[in-house]
Formats: sequence, C-alpha cells, structure tokens
Amino acid sequence: MNLSVSECLKRYSVSIIGASGYSGAELTRLLLRHPNVELQELYAFSQAGKNAAELYPALFCDKFYKPYNGETESDIYFLALPHGEALQLVPQLVSAGKTVIDLSGDFRLKSVLEHEHFYKQLKTPDAVMTYGMPELFREEILKGKAVSNPGCFATSIVLGIAPLLLDTEHALKVRAVNCTSTSGISGAGRSSKTELSFSEMSENIRAYKVGVHQHTPEIMQALGTSASNPAFDFTFTPMIGSLVRGIYSVLNVQLEGPADKEYITQLYRKFYTDEPFVRVRESMTEVKHVYRTNFCDIHIAHSSATGSLVIVTAIDNLLKGAAGQAIQNMNIMLGIDETTGLL
Amino acid sequence: MNLSVSECLKRYSVSIIGASGYSGAELTRLLLRHPNVELQELYAFSQAGKNAAELYPALFCDKFYKPYNGETESDIYFLALPHGEALQLVPQLVSAGKTVIDLSGDFRLKSVLEHEHFYKQLKTPDAVMTYGMPELFREEILKGKAVSNPGCFATSIVLGIAPLLLDTEHALKVRAVNCTSTSGISGAGRSSKTELSFSEMSENIRAYKVGVHQHTPEIMQALGTSASNPAFDFTFTPMIGSLVRGIYSVLNVQLEGPADKEYITQLYRKFYTDEPFVRVRESMTEVKHVYRTNFCDIHIAHSSATGSLVIVTAIDNLLKGAAGQAIQNMNIMLGIDETTGLL
Amino acid sequence: MNLSVSECLKRYSVSIIGASGYSGAELTRLLLRHPNVELQELYAFSQAGKNAAELYPALFCDKFYKPYNGETESDIYFLALPHGEALQLVPQLVSAGKTVIDLSGDFRLKSVLEHEHFYKQLKTPDAVMTYGMPELFREEILKGKAVSNPGCFATSIVLGIAPLLLDTEHALKVRAVNCTSTSGISGAGRSSKTELSFSEMSENIRAYKVGVHQHTPEIMQALGTSASNPAFDFTFTPMIGSLVRGIYSVLNVQLEGPADKEYITQLYRKFYTDEPFVRVRESMTEVKHVYRTNFCDIHIAHSSATGSLVIVTAIDNLLKGAAGQAIQNMNIMLGIDETTGLL
Amino acid sequence: MNLSVSECLKRYSVSIIGASGYSGAELTRLLLRHPNVELQELYAFSQAGKNAAELYPALFCDKFYKPYNGETESDIYFLALPHGEALQLVPQLVSAGKTVIDLSGDFRLKSVLEHEHFYKQLKTPDAVMTYGMPELFREEILKGKAVSNPGCFATSIVLGIAPLLLDTEHALKVRAVNCTSTSGISGAGRSSKTELSFSEMSENIRAYKVGVHQHTPEIMQALGTSASNPAFDFTFTPMIGSLVRGIYSVLNVQLEGPADKEYITQLYRKFYTDEPFVRVRESMTEVKHVYRTNFCDIHIAHSSATGSLVIVTAIDNLLKGAAGQAIQNMNIMLGIDETTGLL
Repeated sequence: MNLSVSECLKRYSVSIIGASGYSGAELTRLLLRHPNVELQELYAFSQAGKNAAELYPALFCDKFYKPYNGETESDIYFLALPHGEALQLVPQLVSAGKTVIDLSGDFRLKSVLEHEHFYKQLKTPDAVMTYGMPELFREEILKGKAVSNPGCFATSIVLGIAPLLLDTEHALKVRAVNCTSTSGISGAGRSSKTELSFSEMSENIRAYKVGVHQHTPEIMQALGTSASNPAFDFTFTPMIGSLVRGIYSVLNVQLEGPADKEYITQLYRKFYTDEPFVRVRESMTEVKHVYRTNFCDIHIAHSSATGSLVIVTAIDNLLKGAAGQAIQNMNIMLGIDETTGLL
Repeated sequence: MNLSVSECLKRYSVSIIGASGYSGAELTRLLLRHPNVELQELYAFSQAGKNAAELYPALFCDKFYKPYNGETESDIYFLALPHGEALQLVPQLVSAGKTVIDLSGDFRLKSVLEHEHFYKQLKTPDAVMTYGMPELFREEILKGKAVSNPGCFATSIVLGIAPLLLDTEHALKVRAVNCTSTSGISGAGRSSKTELSFSEMSENIRAYKVGVHQHTPEIMQALGTSASNPAFDFTFTPMIGSLVRGIYSVLNVQLEGPADKEYITQLYRKFYTDEPFVRVRESMTEVKHVYRTNFCDIHIAHSSATGSLVIVTAIDNLLKGAAGQAIQNMNIMLGIDETTGLL
Repeated sequence: MNLSVSECLKRYSVSIIGASGYSGAELTRLLLRHPNVELQELYAFSQAGKNAAELYPALFCDKFYKPYNGETESDIYFLALPHGEALQLVPQLVSAGKTVIDLSGDFRLKSVLEHEHFYKQLKTPDAVMTYGMPELFREEILKGKAVSNPGCFATSIVLGIAPLLLDTEHALKVRAVNCTSTSGISGAGRSSKTELSFSEMSENIRAYKVGVHQHTPEIMQALGTSASNPAFDFTFTPMIGSLVRGIYSVLNVQLEGPADKEYITQLYRKFYTDEPFVRVRESMTEVKHVYRTNFCDIHIAHSSATGSLVIVTAIDNLLKGAAGQAIQNMNIMLGIDETTGLL
Repeated sequence: MNLSVSECLKRYSVSIIGASGYSGAELTRLLLRHPNVELQELYAFSQAGKNAAELYPALFCDKFYKPYNGETESDIYFLALPHGEALQLVPQLVSAGKTVIDLSGDFRLKSVLEHEHFYKQLKTPDAVMTYGMPELFREEILKGKAVSNPGCFATSIVLGIAPLLLDTEHALKVRAVNCTSTSGISGAGRSSKTELSFSEMSENIRAYKVGVHQHTPEIMQALGTSASNPAFDFTFTPMIGSLVRGIYSVLNVQLEGPADKEYITQLYRKFYTDEPFVRVRESMTEVKHVYRTNFCDIHIAHSSATGSLVIVTAIDNLLKGAAGQAIQNMNIMLGIDETTGLL
C-alpha cells in the first residue's frame, strides 16, 4: 500500500444504509480501513440501537445502528438493502447531489418488463443507473455519480464470458452458454431460515431457481443481449453449498467452430490486461484463491474440436460480488487509485 | 445381526409423538429397521399433512405426519416434544396402559424445585418417571412401562463419571468435577434461529448457559447427589461447535489423593464390563468414532499425583444422547436383546 | 425390514480385499448387517495387523486386517483396491469359481485404447466384466458371477441421462451434454495429500481433470456410445467441495427440438418405474436427501423452447456410488431381494 | 487508520524465514499492508523456487520463495520455522544486530530441563529470549531487539488467567486451573497427515497430548510459576475441531474463597485497561468474534460461592496466536503505534 501524502488525508464522509447485513458489515470493515473516507453513519432499521461491535465484534467498530430518516450529511452513500427498498431512496440521494452506490437489484435492469418478471416488483422506466462493473463500463462509471452495483452471480458469470462476446477484433461466435454456479450461504444474507441452518446445510449442496434466477436478465444485458431475445442459448443453475463465502462458476460455452484453450487464454489475457482485479490463471482456480479478496480469477479449463469450452471463475461473493466491487466503483468515481483500500 | 426366528416376527405397534424434529426423525429411521416393531403413526403438529419423505427424503418413509388427538391404538409411544409439552400427555398414555418413552426433560427431575428453577416451568411432585439410563438403572427400567430418557449432555457426562462415584468397592473421593462439553448443532433441534445459521456457525464455537444449563440437576441426581446440596463441586460449560452431530465431553475430576490412569481405566472397564454400548478405550476417543452409533466411548486421558483426572467421552447426541438410548430402553422393557436394531 | 425365515439364515461367506479404505469400510459396515452373508476376512495390505475397530471405531467390527495371499475360502469377494491392483486378482478369483464384485476401474472399459488413454495403464482386451449398473444391465448381472462396479461420478451422470438416450419408444435426439459434478472429498479415498487437508478444503471448491476424467469413457460406453466416436457432444467438469460424502450432478442437456419438463419427468418416471433405488422427484433434490442411502435422486429442473434441459441428480458417493451399488449387485447375483441390507 | 505523514514512509526492510507455512503466509499478508516496512525476502526451503502467488493466490504477492543461506540484508527477521530449526539461526541474526521475532518454541522456556522434557530436543541455557507477550512483558520487549513469540494455546490461556495471578492489589488465591482449549486445524500447520484430512476432521473433535502439551511449561512460566514446581494445580486438554482458524479456551479456575463474576470482570477490565488487543466482554465470546483479528476476547462466564470460576477466551490462532502478535511485538520494538497494520 503506497500512499501518497495527500491520500493519507481522509476527505470524504461516507454512510451506509442497510449496514447490518453481511454486505453492510463488509462495507463497514473496508471503509474503516480506507484512507480517503471517514465512515460517518451506519443505518439499519431492524438493528437500530445496537452497536456494530455487538453484532459483529470482529469489525472493531463502535458505531450505533440508526434508522435512516432522510439524512444527507454524507458525501457518499452505499445502500445495501433488500431488493425493492432502494427504489425510493436512491432518487432522493441523487437529487441531493450525493454519490450513490446501490447494491440491490433495483436499478440494474433497463427493461421494466424483465425487472417485473424476475423481481416480481414494479418499477418505473427511469429507475436505471450505470451498471457498476468496472471492467466493462469504467468510462460510464467515471462520468457519473451513481452506480448500480452488480449481482454476485452475475459478476462471476459476466466476467467469465465477456471477452468471448465483447472482443471486437476476433470473430468468435457463441452459440450457447450453460452456467453452474455454487455460492456460499452468506449470499442469502443474515438469515433465520431453517433451510439455511447449519444442521441443514453442513455437508449439503442444493440448486434453486434453475432458469428463473433474477441475475439472468442482468447477465444478458451486461453481455449486450437480453433475456427475452437472447443472442445465444443461456441456462443458469445457481446452487448453494457448505461454505460461507465464495462463488465458483463453471461456464460451459458452445462456440461455432473449434475452440482452442491457448488461444482463448491469450484473448482473455489481452482483454483484461489492465484490470487490477481480474486474474486469468494458467492453473485451476479455487474458491480459496480469492477468499476475502476483490479478485475474480478465471481459468480456461478445457476446449474441444467441436467448439466446447469450459471456463471456471471464482470470486468472493461478499467482496468482488458485493462490497469490494462497490468500493472499487467508489474509487473510480472519486478519481483515486482503483485498488485503494482493497489490497 | 443374529435374529432368532421369533425375533423376525414383528410384534409391537409403535407411534412417535413429535416425529418431525431431528430426534423424531432418528426414531423413525431406527424403528423402521427394528425387527420387533411396526411403526404405526408419526404425530407432528407443525408439519401435519406433510409426508415424512418430503421433510426427510433420506428416511425413505412414506407416512404422513398427523396432529395427535389422544389416540391410544399403539402398544408403545415415543414422545419427542419440546420441554413442557409432554407433561399432560404422558400420564394419559401411562393410564391407558401404554409403554411410554419420553425424550423431553419433563419427567427427569425428582425435585420439583430444581425442575422449576432450571426449566422455568411448573410441575407436580409425581411427574417423575424412571430415569432411562440403562447402565445405571436397568433393573428399574426393566420393571416398569415408562421411562424418562436422559438428556444428551447428561448422558455424556454421567457415564463418564459414574464409575468414580458409584463403584462401591473402592474408596475414591471426588472433590470437584468441571465439565466442558461441545455439542453438534442438531442438539438445538430443527431450528430457524439466525445464530444457528450456517453462516454464523461455520468455523465457530460458542459456549452458552454456563453454570445454569438444565442438565445440571439431572447429572447430579443420576450421580446420587443434587444440584442444591452437592456432594462435590460441579461446573458445567456447554458449547456448540461447527458440527451437526456428536457430543464431546472433557471431564476434569479432582480426587482426594493421587489419581492413577491405569487403575481408573481398570475400574471403568469392570464397571461397564457387561454394557453393550459403553466402550472404555485405551487410546483417545473422537466424535467420529461414535458417529451414527449408540456407543458412549470413554478414555481416561490423564492423571496426576495431585489427584487430577481428565476423562474424555464421546457420543452421538441424536443416538446415545436421544433416539438410540430410547430404543435401548424400549428393548429392555420388551425383554428382548438390548442391542436389537442398534448395531 | 421383513425377513422370511430362510432369509434369516446366513448362507454366504464374504471377504473384502482392500478393506481399509473408505469404500472398504462402508462394505464392512453393510455386510455386517446383511442377513444373507457372513463377513469372513478383511484383507488390507497397508493396515495389515490392525484391528478394524481401531481404524474405524464406528464400525464395531473386531476383525484384523490381513495381507491377501491368494486365499479362496469365501464364496464372494469384493475388491476395493486402487486402480490397477485388481487386474491380476480378479481373473484368479473368477477361475476359482468365486462371485466377484470389483469396485476399481480396471474392468469397466471394453476399449483397451480408451482404458490406456484415461487410466495410463495397460490392459488386455479380455479384462472386461459385466458393468454392474442394475438399472441398465440387470439381466446381464443376473446371469453372471462377476461384475465391475460403476464409478461414482459415472453413476450420478449415467442414471441422470440414460432415459433420454435409451428410451426406445420416444424420438428424443440429444445433441450435447455438459456435466458439472461436485463430489465429497471421501471420493479421493483415505488420503494424506496436503490439498485434501481440512485447512485447505474447508470453505473451498476446486475443479480438476476437466475433460480428461477417467469416468468419461465409462459414461459414454454405458450410454451406448464412446468417448472416441461420440454420438453427442459431451463435457464433464468434476469438482470437490467442502463435504465428505455425496455427489451432486448438474446435467445440461441440449435436445434437438423443444424440451418439456413435465414430459421428460414422465418419461423418467416410466423408465425407472420398477427401480427400488432411483427416485424421480417433483421438487429439487439435495445431497442431504440421499446422505447415507443407496438412492439416486433425479429432478428435471428446467426446460426451454430451444431444447435446453437441466437435470439434477444426487447420490451418496460411498453407497450408490460404490459400496451400496456393489451390495445391490451381489443381491442380484444371489437371487435375493435387491434391497436386502440396503434400506 | 490515521497515518501521520512520516508513518506513510516505509522505512524498515523485513524478511521472513519459513514463509511458506500458514503463519508465514499470514505474516506475508500483514507485512505487505504494513505502512512502516518493506517486505524483502520470503525464505522457505521446501517451496523454494515457487511463487508465493502460486501457493497462496489470495495473498497477491509475486515474490519467489528462496532457501535461506545466512543473508542479513534486512533490518528485521521473522522466523516461522518448525520447532528446533531456529536454534542456530536466531543467535546468528542477533549477533548481526538484527531485530528478530521467532515464532517457534525454541527460545520460550528458561528451564533447559522443561524444554528438553516437553520438546524432546536439547538446548543450551542461554537459548532464551524475551517472551513476546505485550500485555505482560511490554517493558522488556521495548528494551530489546529480539523476542520469542508466544504459543497459540499459551496466549489464549495466559491472557485468560494472568489478572487473577498477577494483579498485586488483590488477594486472590488460585488453587487450581483446568483448561480445555479447542484449536482450528491450521494450528497443525500446512500438513499432509491423514488424520488432518477433510474427510477425517469434518464433523469431528479430537483431544491430544492431554497433560503433556509443550505449551504447559510456557503457560506456567508466563504466569510466574513453573510446570515442575507449580504454585497451583494445572491441567491442560488441547483439542482440534472442525474449523480452520481460532482457539476457544474454557478455563475452570478454583479460587480459595468465593468467586464473584462482577468483581472479577472489573478486575480484568482494570488489568487490561490500556491494552489495544484484549477485550473483556460482558456477553459470551465466540471464535467468530475474533476471526481474522488480533484480539483476545475474554468473558467471565460463571462464578460460584465455592470459588469456582469459568473464564472463556477466544483468539485467532494465526493472528493473536502467531503472526498478529509477532507484528505487535515488532511495532513495540520499532517504537511505533502498537496497532499499526493490525486493525
């Protein structure tokens, strides 16, 4: 961590709305250590009155959770609320001139129809913000003051496929993508559901929402197509397994024409050449390799003469899949080194 | 498994009241395989209408849970209800001439005061049944038709200390016993508490109810003394760890006069010589050694010239600590081989 | 368990060669409880001299492991040896008129070339035995005295796809199958590798041998095609996760023509209608549902108008994936109820 | 993290000898982020030639491991070697005027006899360094240039008992201490032992070295007494459980005269009042509360009229129990804020 003298001076005041969940706690941890910000308020309705150090003693943060009542004293607001709860708040904060990073799914989809279909919630056509995936949309993020932070599964899948589809130099034609992604259980939030209890989930794996997960349209949109009119066949099987953190995605891609592992590896290397948080790896990646980091590791694992490609990606769902990517977006919007507070 | 011809014929009809919890599910699994019984009804209020195979597909049992409405068609009733709920039911079933095994704490304590102090529930002085720990009370169990099945922690602790206190030939004087017991999380039942979620309990250990756990008076009573007027100093620290099943108890015993590991090992061997489910082991025991068995393994791990003794015991909390011991009690009451259906 | 009087009489003597590994231990556990056999010898070179109760105290088996020296006193031999070590032994036992079930990969593949390519070991063209997957090859198993027991991944994948390919009434055309299978770590055997230590594998997932796993040709052969000249595109990504037992397979199938979930479910139901150990389930399956059972659970999770199908299967790798299926094969060859000792 | 301008300038060059084990990897991670040091060399014999990023991709460190050949270019050396291997190296580094922090047990014990008894290794009487437990020996650490970093179990036990014994104002008399401590499996190092494999340790607990663990004399020495002539009865039962990191210690203390929880809590509060890394907590502590932190949490859980006291402590074995405390010691010796790089 090489800090210039000026970077040592904290400048921006930051608050978190929805600070008591797992993503909120990770944001708290990261922001407390970030040299350019001062963590101001932790808003959390259900835990209001409790001290953060009581709920998360490992955080070493003695702030008290408060209910949010429209305050706008901070420069920057992170929202880590359940889906639907950010829809009203974000426009207010944006109007007040605040820098806003929303971790919910409320502002990710451009298509109102797809949002309503996958989230079962109404929203207006203008409820869209810049999609905060730096590797694909850094220029747009840089220009604005508000981003919608990507979903965890979406991050692990989009980064694993994007070079095939968005590399304009090469003539790769993708016919089908099948994704099988295993998430740590923290992805379900700080929950009291019986089916997420230790006794149920230890030594277990469970798929859910196969083909209907709300990250499906987000993935398609980020890749330049749409769930309702897809440019290629797409199937997504989300699963949870016996781990707290991490997402491990196996992406089966069907190309038209033969696939070549080395060629694809080079193409990925080039595509991500300047990216501080994407690592295209020679050897197999594992969840442990990215545990508590902001990295997305990618390994091209297999190719065949018939055009099959197996790509494996790993992220920490609470970091690159949530709080880490959110800080990365903040850094971009503040114009400081993108890795600040994240290495 | 050597079955005589007559043992091959199923004879007794059995029902479980409170069949949908973890102990109830283990009872279901064991009774389905038991050659002398026919599993009749699975009563469970909260899951009424659901099929057992839906809630526990590994059971391969296609019975439907029903609410219990006072039926008395079966010969034998197991009750695996939350504490307090058996207080009314047991006397009715006993009056109807049924064989009853109650897995709750409702009928374990002879002292009304201690019951009320530790369970925070009223009960009448006659709400006591034979304490179903075969190794100590086999004769009484044999004579009766109703037993109160021991608690899981209590089983792992009482069996680990009993020979020191109840062996009448030797003149051992116990001055103090400190117990530190780690339980699998299934001991808390099929739960939806946030603090028992996978995300909270993976890679975690947590002590609770130190010095006030309700198994304390039960342990003292079984050992021939009482919590209110103890014959020796007693401290009990229950804990839960990152495992589903099992109880591992470390018993620090302070004797008057020097302790000798080999001597104590022999004394334990002799005390449990005819017991099919207690194994006094030469080498260290582990939870894995008794996983999904009805054994209680005991190892005398350490002794000192100043009278300190470390005894380690391991059981499966859902078997020897609940359903397994309950079946063992049933076998005794039916006059059949005590190990039937348990090996 | 309804045993007829004659079934209560043990008749066959059985020995295990390679008894000290995890599959060998499961065989030991199951055979000790099996009413038609008497477990005679436990052969294990590396653990020779040790008692089974010392290595696996939960087994409650006081037999000593011995080195195998060509004895042929038993009626039935199970071989649970590392790949390559059964190649010499099996022909000797078959010549001696013994019933043989081999759990290694040595005799599974008909193609010598494919065996040598995937196992990196030479073998002779006649080193092939009946492939012991009862659901597909029961008639052949029934006629013979020797079977090669299927691989664990292969079982979970073949059973999940077979009805699509082998159902002769319907005109389904499979274009591609992508399999992503997560196995419990016990699949790697009783191992001392650093990368399989608790510290490395807790909270981890790792893919390996993508596209080159030795179960690939076995799967293709069982499905009536071959790895070298496949009738459809096939990709297999094996993984290990943070669990001891279980295999969870997500099978992405590409049909020609639209896929229909309900239709496929009915087709599977019909295909497996008389199978005691395959359950086609309406709701999502989980590893926990088949834990310590011999079931293979199958759920048709998703279908699309473009012909994509997601099929999820779950087995216990040590039972239906090894020891359980081996006992099932023995039961068939003995002409007794196929489920004996397995429910 | 408030860094003054001068603290932003890195000044000291640091190397790690024995960098490829778990403690070495944690040291690497922490030193890379420490504002006052520059990580120079990673020495590791067995992994020499490998890149740190290959062995620990989560570290994001592209240094190569080298064999150590007596280099003395760095200002500060951390040694994280197996016991015995530091005995020769430390004196050479000290002679060369280097600041040295040794994480092995080689230099902890003043008594040659106790060292040889518990470590089964010879050593000379002068092979002793300042015991690097800041809470008890800060003045000595401050004065010197070399410390022997405490053992993980010892840290969790000594900090939990010290106030009772070392508080000079109060007249508490300790008669006996029984410790039951569960460690994460990383405490055994980066190991390839079968008994530490995931398949063996998942859902397991195992005690070991009861009464003979090498941290026993270290604990007694730190508390001002000795294992060979103890001022109070002491028993220590170390265990490993199904978790990677953390130590949870239950300390049963027998006082002469009645024990009072509130009084003791106040006494601990006062004793640790200025300590940045010891937290005396009102409510129960858990391993999760200190996970990946340098804290030692202490909770006085129970007291009795007969003088029994139950004290529960939690640390992260790789941080406060190893690498974290080592950095804390370095900070003290460098005269910088003790918490630098640790919050």
